Amino acid sequence: MRKPIIFLLLVLGSSCVVSLLSAGFDPKPKAFPGASKGITFEVHNYEQKLDHFSYGVQQLTFMQKYLVNIDHWNRTGGPIFFYAGNEGSIELFALNTGFMFEIAPEFGAMVLFAEHRYYGSSIPFGKNGYVHKQYYQYQSSMQALADYVELLAHVRQTYEGAEKSPVIVFGGSYGGMLAAWMRIKYPHVVQGAIAASAPVAQFTGLTPCEKFGQVVTHTFALQGQECVQTIRKSWDAINKMAATAEGRAWLSDAWRLCKPLNSTDDAKNLKSYLSDVWTNLAMADYPYMANFLAPLPAYPVMAVCQPMKFLKDEPKEILLEIFEGLSVYFNYSTTATCLSYESSMPSSLDDNGWFLQSCTEMVMPMCYDGKNDFFEPQAWNLTEFSETCVKKWDVRPEPYKMEQMYGGRNLKYASNIVFSNGLLDPWSSGGVLEDVNESVVSVIIPEGAHHLDLRSSERADPKSVIQARDVHKANILKWISEYSNSV
Amino acid sequence: MRKPIIFLLLVLGSSCVVSLLSAGFDPKPKAFPGASKGITFEVHNYEQKLDHFSYGVQQLTFMQKYLVNIDHWNRTGGPIFFYAGNEGSIELFALNTGFMFEIAPEFGAMVLFAEHRYYGSSIPFGKNGYVHKQYYQYQSSMQALADYVELLAHVRQTYEGAEKSPVIVFGGSYGGMLAAWMRIKYPHVVQGAIAASAPVAQFTGLTPCEKFGQVVTHTFALQGQECVQTIRKSWDAINKMAATAEGRAWLSDAWRLCKPLNSTDDAKNLKSYLSDVWTNLAMADYPYMANFLAPLPAYPVMAVCQPMKFLKDEPKEILLEIFEGLSVYFNYSTTATCLSYESSMPSSLDDNGWFLQSCTEMVMPMCYDGKNDFFEPQAWNLTEFSETCVKKWDVRPEPYKMEQMYGGRNLKYASNIVFSNGLLDPWSSGGVLEDVNESVVSVIIPEGAHHLDLRSSERADPKSVIQARDVHKANILKWISEYSNSV
Repeated sequence: MRKPIIFLLLVLGSSCVVSLLSAGFDPKPKAFPGASKGITFEVHNYEQKLDHFSYGVQQLTFMQKYLVNIDHWNRTGGPIFFYAGNEGSIELFALNTGFMFEIAPEFGAMVLFAEHRYYGSSIPFGKNGYVHKQYYQYQSSMQALADYVELLAHVRQTYEGAEKSPVIVFGGSYGGMLAAWMRIKYPHVVQGAIAASAPVAQFTGLTPCEKFGQVVTHTFALQGQECVQTIRKSWDAINKMAATAEGRAWLSDAWRLCKPLNSTDDAKNLKSYLSDVWTNLAMADYPYMANFLAPLPAYPVMAVCQPMKFLKDEPKEILLEIFEGLSVYFNYSTTATCLSYESSMPSSLDDNGWFLQSCTEMVMPMCYDGKNDFFEPQAWNLTEFSETCVKKWDVRPEPYKMEQMYGGRNLKYASNIVFSNGLLDPWSSGGVLEDVNESVVSVIIPEGAHHLDLRSSERADPKSVIQARDVHKANILKWISEYSNSV
Repeated sequence: MRKPIIFLLLVLGSSCVVSLLSAGFDPKPKAFPGASKGITFEVHNYEQKLDHFSYGVQQLTFMQKYLVNIDHWNRTGGPIFFYAGNEGSIELFALNTGFMFEIAPEFGAMVLFAEHRYYGSSIPFGKNGYVHKQYYQYQSSMQALADYVELLAHVRQTYEGAEKSPVIVFGGSYGGMLAAWMRIKYPHVVQGAIAASAPVAQFTGLTPCEKFGQVVTHTFALQGQECVQTIRKSWDAINKMAATAEGRAWLSDAWRLCKPLNSTDDAKNLKSYLSDVWTNLAMADYPYMANFLAPLPAYPVMAVCQPMKFLKDEPKEILLEIFEGLSVYFNYSTTATCLSYESSMPSSLDDNGWFLQSCTEMVMPMCYDGKNDFFEPQAWNLTEFSETCVKKWDVRPEPYKMEQMYGGRNLKYASNIVFSNGLLDPWSSGGVLEDVNESVVSVIIPEGAHHLDLRSSERADPKSVIQARDVHKANILKWISEYSNSV
């Protein structure tokens, strides 16, 4: 059974990757030169409570990193734009959420990014954080939200003029879920939420498990059914080659595999890698060149599909086509000497944290039938997944927890949330795609991939994302004035 | 420093006390003959999760008691009337919340009472529950609310026809706070809340600490300023008597103290007892005979004030008057042989649980100036209180926690809550006394004491409480039809 798909919000300009991964952030406040246009921030740390809901470890704390930019802040009560950090180092999100920095000047806003507990450098118990349940037990979305509430109280006290500032919470992907949930649970703390590509209903019983793979397939189908059929046929082709030593040797050579296929297990890993790649490509199908775990051209799905449309029948021919498409993903920079299929993630990204969360509360069922999608058929097997979780983390998934806690799509009584979804993005399958009430609204970006709207403006942006950003701004303005009228 | 005032919702018919305290409830489901009109229920237990917010002790559970009455339940989706249990055995609340049973037939409602964790027989780790922080750390309102959400899911699954039933949550006092907070935090689980005498803003910075004592005083002032002045002057009179051996002997004799005064510490305890008695009387100032920790006549404050209005100046004369009033409280049954001032509670009520909660999150500051109230002046001293808490429980009070968690009176974005408050009740000082928005409304009962509206109808009920109950019913009807229209 595959590990759960990580959200992969980590769509970076290549220069960011270099500066981020080599910077070795100093925990003391300092100016950080953001790689993207005008993104700079000070780095701070807050001594955060470990457990907000019980009183057994009141004295235990951890250092929570947060980033602040007050360049454009109106110090007499200007709003706070707060990013609810998700599963990764907070700098990654800051550098990829240019929208907040872009609109800060017109709102006179402070920009504030908070790192999610157990990610980046905000790991309770430091290097022991993920070693034993005794340490990592406090990883939960409920605790993370309470961290943010506490941190905001601290920032209000620390920055003169912020005491009564309205707070708008932003987030993309899991961060978007947190943004929406923060408004739902703490409407007295945040005045509104921009929840981009937030699959708040990607849970058992709320969204059919087939849906996610169907959206991936649909994004590829936009480049022609030939591409979809080629991918759909590739699984059998791999299985056929993997069945014999000769076939494995051929494939290892033809695909320039770093680790030649020695077993059917290797072939399984290779297929798993491929599935992740197609998924990642749909998520990152941006209209401009970007660096998504590997550098990618504009409209990468189109580029990948380009060589995969000749509807061959012979396994070797199919696989040669696939390799050509795949090369766009793993070797756009033309510097790769071989294809490493052991992970679709760069080694610098530790996906332990999300694996753990998906083993407790973030249980997002995914399944594939190979008919309505182009994946190799695979059922969702909770029992098997549970066993993996017990073995790895000594925890059991609680599939209904998030619905019970936050309500899924049942948000009739929530207020002041914009849910935006790009339809190229498979995570839209678990999103809120219709208005819920007057102030909980849905914005669809037909040409958008994973939270495109939160990224900096680019010339290639489709009209729909520009419109989505206008909706965001209009709502933020409304929420702020609603708040000003009530204090 | 006195222990915090317990909410004291335990206003029982005397027959209840006997039947309750001697019943030794069997944990297996059975019919329980309620002492009050038509109050019967089955007793059940649910294996409840110990920690809902972290994942360290997923396997640990405790047995949570709940009571069910389905006599009038419409088994095809009739509503569930859910009582959010507070600080005591759940039977006490069931027997004193006749309103829910009275209106169940007209709504075709299931009546469900859930016991709050760490009270009654729902104590995690059983007899060890209060022995060490390792065991009692999980006592918090947030955990209790999550218990109720989980229990409701269980009941929906267990009772055929309840799957899509609307749920109305009720509660009085701390239970009223829980009811309101449950609607605020889990609007997808409960459709509306009747929050009676719920001091959701009895916290630091939200309500001046003097307020509570002023309401107690005001309730006595309705019987004439003479009564107020007599009580106000009594503290000095006690101090004078307590200063000499002769005076202590006189007072011990005149007041028939079970334990004669041997020190100024004893005198301090006596004054503390007196303060509690006046407070309890204001809370229990019901228009009919009831048993409030001791049996009391109708309008007990009037009865107590009757002999305390002669405006004497001589300490002994003042104290003789006080004793006459006091006798109404401690000896209305005329069976007491002496006055025990060591606790204003009967020994059958363990107030440990509330003491603990007030030492973590339920930090409700109280202070008295002796000018705008009739109490002996006493400042609110958080430092001193903190030390008591550390010594007794190894925990520290978090005075801002509840505001941060639930918003205090800042409930603009909440929905479907009725906050009812009797103005005789000192807890109204921390209540919501004005409408917040269209569906979060306030109902004032000028002649009402502590959640009078939740009690069974009585002939002596003032018109205002009958009207309040009508408001409750109209809102419940509205919430149910709102829900029916949306599913």
